[in-house]
Amino acid sequence: MNTTALPFAQVLEELRRSSPLVLSLTNSVAQSITANMLLAVGAAPVMLRDTEEIAQLLPAACGGLLINVGTLSREQAAAQRHAVACARAAGIPWVLDPVAVGFLRFRTDFCRELLELQPTLIRGNASEIRALAGESSGGRGPESTEESTAALQAACSLALRSGAVVLVTGATDYVTDGTRTMALGNGDPLMTRVTAVGCAMGALCAACIASAPDAFTGAAASAAILGIAGENAAARHPLPGSFAAALLDELAALTPSTVVQQTRILTPEGN
Amino acid sequence: MNTTALPFAQVLEELRRSSPLVLSLTNSVAQSITANMLLAVGAAPVMLRDTEEIAQLLPAACGGLLINVGTLSREQAAAQRHAVACARAAGIPWVLDPVAVGFLRFRTDFCRELLELQPTLIRGNASEIRALAGESSGGRGPESTEESTAALQAACSLALRSGAVVLVTGATDYVTDGTRTMALGNGDPLMTRVTAVGCAMGALCAACIASAPDAFTGAAASAAILGIAGENAAARHPLPGSFAAALLDELAALTPSTVVQQTRILTPEGN
Amino acid sequence: MNTTALPFAQVLEELRRSSPLVLSLTNSVAQSITANMLLAVGAAPVMLRDTEEIAQLLPAACGGLLINVGTLSREQAAAQRHAVACARAAGIPWVLDPVAVGFLRFRTDFCRELLELQPTLIRGNASEIRALAGESSGGRGPESTEESTAALQAACSLALRSGAVVLVTGATDYVTDGTRTMALGNGDPLMTRVTAVGCAMGALCAACIASAPDAFTGAAASAAILGIAGENAAARHPLPGSFAAALLDELAALTPSTVVQQTRILTPEGN
Repeated sequence: MNTTALPFAQVLEELRRSSPLVLSLTNSVAQSITANMLLAVGAAPVMLRDTEEIAQLLPAACGGLLINVGTLSREQAAAQRHAVACARAAGIPWVLDPVAVGFLRFRTDFCRELLELQPTLIRGNASEIRALAGESSGGRGPESTEESTAALQAACSLALRSGAVVLVTGATDYVTDGTRTMALGNGDPLMTRVTAVGCAMGALCAACIASAPDAFTGAAASAAILGIAGENAAARHPLPGSFAAALLDELAALTPSTVVQQTRILTPEGN
Repeated sequence: MNTTALPFAQVLEELRRSSPLVLSLTNSVAQSITANMLLAVGAAPVMLRDTEEIAQLLPAACGGLLINVGTLSREQAAAQRHAVACARAAGIPWVLDPVAVGFLRFRTDFCRELLELQPTLIRGNASEIRALAGESSGGRGPESTEESTAALQAACSLALRSGAVVLVTGATDYVTDGTRTMALGNGDPLMTRVTAVGCAMGALCAACIASAPDAFTGAAASAAILGIAGENAAARHPLPGSFAAALLDELAALTPSTVVQQTRILTPEGN
Repeated sequence: MNTTALPFAQVLEELRRSSPLVLSLTNSVAQSITANMLLAVGAAPVMLRDTEEIAQLLPAACGGLLINVGTLSREQAAAQRHAVACARAAGIPWVLDPVAVGFLRFRTDFCRELLELQPTLIRGNASEIRALAGESSGGRGPESTEESTAALQAACSLALRSGAVVLVTGATDYVTDGTRTMALGNGDPLMTRVTAVGCAMGALCAACIASAPDAFTGAAASAAILGIAGENAAARHPLPGSFAAALLDELAALTPSTVVQQTRILTPEGN
């Protein structure tokens, strides 16, 4: 039995007990799968567009906030800036998903601005994390063109500089706060053949952090939970359309004991 | 045989014969499932954003209009206000879905303004209906935290005051025009584990009202039709991802005779 | 063996080898299925909203551009106008999907303006193509009310006038450049029971043109590829919810040899 994964099972239990409300200010492609992934795992989704409503709901009812810049507009950037300020004032954890930063200047400048506001977690693929850390100009778009291992050093320096936990997703997922790092090996390549699974993971991270003792544990738990659900879905459904439905089924059916049994931690915590 | 449900079977037949075009001005999360639910049952969806196009299409071609405030913006509120005026001028039935009203002031003020414009139907969960009737400040977001029975009195007073038929959805669905009330017992809890099924139901209500002798019958028919499809889908698919696809399958496969057989009316009409 | 379909199999092979990035500026209902269809077949989707980001990404990384006016706003029209200028300057093929043109003035005027900018391909149903060619005022909305055969003459004159290849989709699909015409007979009526399959096809066309020796071959290949996937999905899943998932599965599983075997060309090329 994988005792290191026990805290992840506890995150899943707590998530289902408390059903945290996650406000997702995300791109227009990801909204439906983001809401469905949160509902499937046992959390509660909410999406708003109006700045006043965001300012009203966040401190009153939300356990977490996701900021995703996938289809950023000037208007959405203003709402996101405002939401981050509200979350910080209320002590609510917030996740930054810097989709496709690097080459695209508008979103890169905006994400660098948000970096100064101490995100609780930054979740990205290797090229996004490297670009945000200032190491490269990023890939050709939302899909990573680099292995996640290549971004580990960038992730550590980004974590130390920003104060955020950083989650680099890929064939191997890395979680780091700059001093300790964990590598997890769950998941399946099919997860990249369904649009916005990674974007929806940002919201799952927010729900897990709201249900965890700390952001590091919450981020690692979300990588384990989604990765295991993805593996189990791919084992039954090797094609992307039916896989997408099965991924939600597996998230809903996932038990804490399965999390303990299936989590693959590739490096001991604290290495 | 449930002869009280015969009119609902006739609504389904007429809906498939006439395939009413329903204009849905709805939230950004619900658009895809709303269009797919209308197509599955046999109606026709259309979504527009431009005010001039709305004003042109509504009187010329639409059988119904849905106004859903789930991700309301100032700009969308203006388009919705305009659409309601067009629908009223043309005598087209329109449905108000006051998502998450109560606590959130912007949408609550806007829905109260729309209330004065005599919606044909108001569809909401218990906390939304109570909030709109002025009885409470609503739940913590789009999910109802109250049983639908608790909202029955609020629904009646809201119906009498606004002139609308009111449909309160929950474990039991209530339809009331303020003088007569019907309770229906179809449905499955899985319908709340798929995002925007309730929002899509607002569009189904518009299609059913366009195919019914009156709004009361149309609203009750939509509760029966969606509830039966939900039960039959859940019997085969107990997890939310595959359930979502099965719900559309069951709506497409639903026959008028199944509607008659499976409709569960819990209180005699006119109690 | 259908040797005329060999070039379509080659398009599929090249698409999977090069995985062209397609920028889709499309309606809000179609975004998710558009991205998933591109991912399933082996291409790469990207969606942006900001004009500066569009201008930056298109020439640097995109193999094709889709312009779809399904939920056109004044703001989106400006972004689309700008994107078309960028694509033309960079020599990138672009597809125009004139959803529901004819009766609706705003989009009809806008699409006529875009016609002057030499789209690589125009994809529409019969009523849209006839309306764009000036022959009729179109159907009642996005669904065609006419057979695609009725639009063949309009398609030819539209192609000659605009310089675009024209693809008329329906029970029979027609591809024409004004001098040569091909009719293809693949597909299934269930494809019209899932929202935005036609809209997503516009993006598939862009991906196929980016992978083809010429726009005519790319357009015909996309009609064959999607039609065959639709037939195979419908054979296993006759209801729309499970059909939608199966359509993506079949696109992912489709092999070049199946394309050669199943393509139904109804008229010899060059008739």
